[in-house]
Amino acid sequence: MSDSFEWSRLVEFYETDLAGIAHFSNFYRWMESAEHAFLRERGIALHEGEIGWPRVNAQADFKKPIQFGDHVRVRVSIAEVRTRSVRYAFEFRVNESDEIHATGEMISVCVNLGTMKAVEIPVEIRTRLER
Amino acid sequence: MSDSFEWSRLVEFYETDLAGIAHFSNFYRWMESAEHAFLRERGIALHEGEIGWPRVNAQADFKKPIQFGDHVRVRVSIAEVRTRSVRYAFEFRVNESDEIHATGEMISVCVNLGTMKAVEIPVEIRTRLER
Amino acid sequence: MSDSFEWSRLVEFYETDLAGIAHFSNFYRWMESAEHAFLRERGIALHEGEIGWPRVNAQADFKKPIQFGDHVRVRVSIAEVRTRSVRYAFEFRVNESDEIHATGEMISVCVNLGTMKAVEIPVEIRTRLER
Amino acid sequence: MSDSFEWSRLVEFYETDLAGIAHFSNFYRWMESAEHAFLRERGIALHEGEIGWPRVNAQADFKKPIQFGDHVRVRVSIAEVRTRSVRYAFEFRVNESDEIHATGEMISVCVNLGTMKAVEIPVEIRTRLER
Repeated sequence: MSDSFEWSRLVEFYETDLAGIAHFSNFYRWMESAEHAFLRERGIALHEGEIGWPRVNAQADFKKPIQFGDHVRVRVSIAEVRTRSVRYAFEFRVNESDEIHATGEMISVCVNLGTMKAVEIPVEIRTRLER
Repeated sequence: MSDSFEWSRLVEFYETDLAGIAHFSNFYRWMESAEHAFLRERGIALHEGEIGWPRVNAQADFKKPIQFGDHVRVRVSIAEVRTRSVRYAFEFRVNESDEIHATGEMISVCVNLGTMKAVEIPVEIRTRLER
Repeated sequence: MSDSFEWSRLVEFYETDLAGIAHFSNFYRWMESAEHAFLRERGIALHEGEIGWPRVNAQADFKKPIQFGDHVRVRVSIAEVRTRSVRYAFEFRVNESDEIHATGEMISVCVNLGTMKAVEIPVEIRTRLER
Repeated sequence: MSDSFEWSRLVEFYETDLAGIAHFSNFYRWMESAEHAFLRERGIALHEGEIGWPRVNAQADFKKPIQFGDHVRVRVSIAEVRTRSVRYAFEFRVNESDEIHATGEMISVCVNLGTMKAVEIPVEIRTRLER
């Protein structure tokens, strides 16, 4: 079974800047939205119980602008499940096109929300991630 | 002694939209920043201890755009201190000009952060607000 | 035919604040999203051609918090079509509930994007608004 | 002469999330603010005339949270001036501490705003960058 998943949303007016395109900071927010949608789809609760997923790294390469009114589609896949973290890879496309407008990566660490210390990813969650 | 106070900040690129001006949602954020700076100046701690100040109403009238690179100045004054809430009035100017670009109002309610119920504004805080 | 329309979206993590709820500034952004979706549904192009719709007033009353993971539903209806402006009314609900979490109003002015001056709403657009 | 520069600002309430800390997307916005302040300090106009500086890459490593009310300090320095782009390095600290909370990098490309094509960095700007 594929480990990729697509999240999409219309680009809103408040996400544009005076250069007339979506501001680059939104790409990181969209990565978060895509990550969260992906986890929900796998049945992994977010910020519930003892486990949270703060990021330790996030990066993006911007190849082509995304515009107001575009339907941005973010494909998220797992690049690597480590002992205490997950590395995600992202591809940004718009509308019906297969052209890649941006790519990204994000590393989220499994932490105990009480102590905010990194912990081993629980087996049940690991199984769902590696499905 | 005057009950007005001015908070200011440069308008950042990420606060603009494709119409080339500061997006209207930022005016509400700037009202919050000005409110918080005002409370700190009065020696009133924010979101510390038991008291918080959620808003029950916020509104703004937009008269003239504010641009990227403008130094936005937000004058905040207390319009009314009620038993359990404070009503603030705001005026937005830019740079050295006295022209008003926008006005706003905000009502913040004094709540117990444990119960999130409205409570009477403690005397010590009321004294500082009415200073 | 009814003049109301509903726009909805999941509340994202980046829209929350340290009080644990959706930050109040997002309600204004959601009003904009709902307004734009409403106009598209009526076949009215946004920021295309000569006509734009800057706001001259926006306000909201906050009754009950909206949480991360809630499906926020914003009902938009036209309160009044004036010669050069439209006044919208908004109601915010979440998930399956009929309880109102917030209400809002917004006045958008019809401007010529070249001059940024208010102009009469063109007949074709007025017809679509008053449909 | 050193090529580093520090930009700072109070972390605002609207920049926090329900984990109680500054949301990671703000670090990218603060990098932009620091980059712009740096360019202004060097006498390089932003989004004026023919030259703009869109990003082609931005990344950050998050080591320690930044809190509401912290005074975030972003040190920006030039890692490399290429023919058509500038690579910046960033360090995030708070208040009086020398501890690094995050590091970042950003590559901004010199473009002609008319064509949005990458162009050689004009000599006058290069001289100011390499000062």
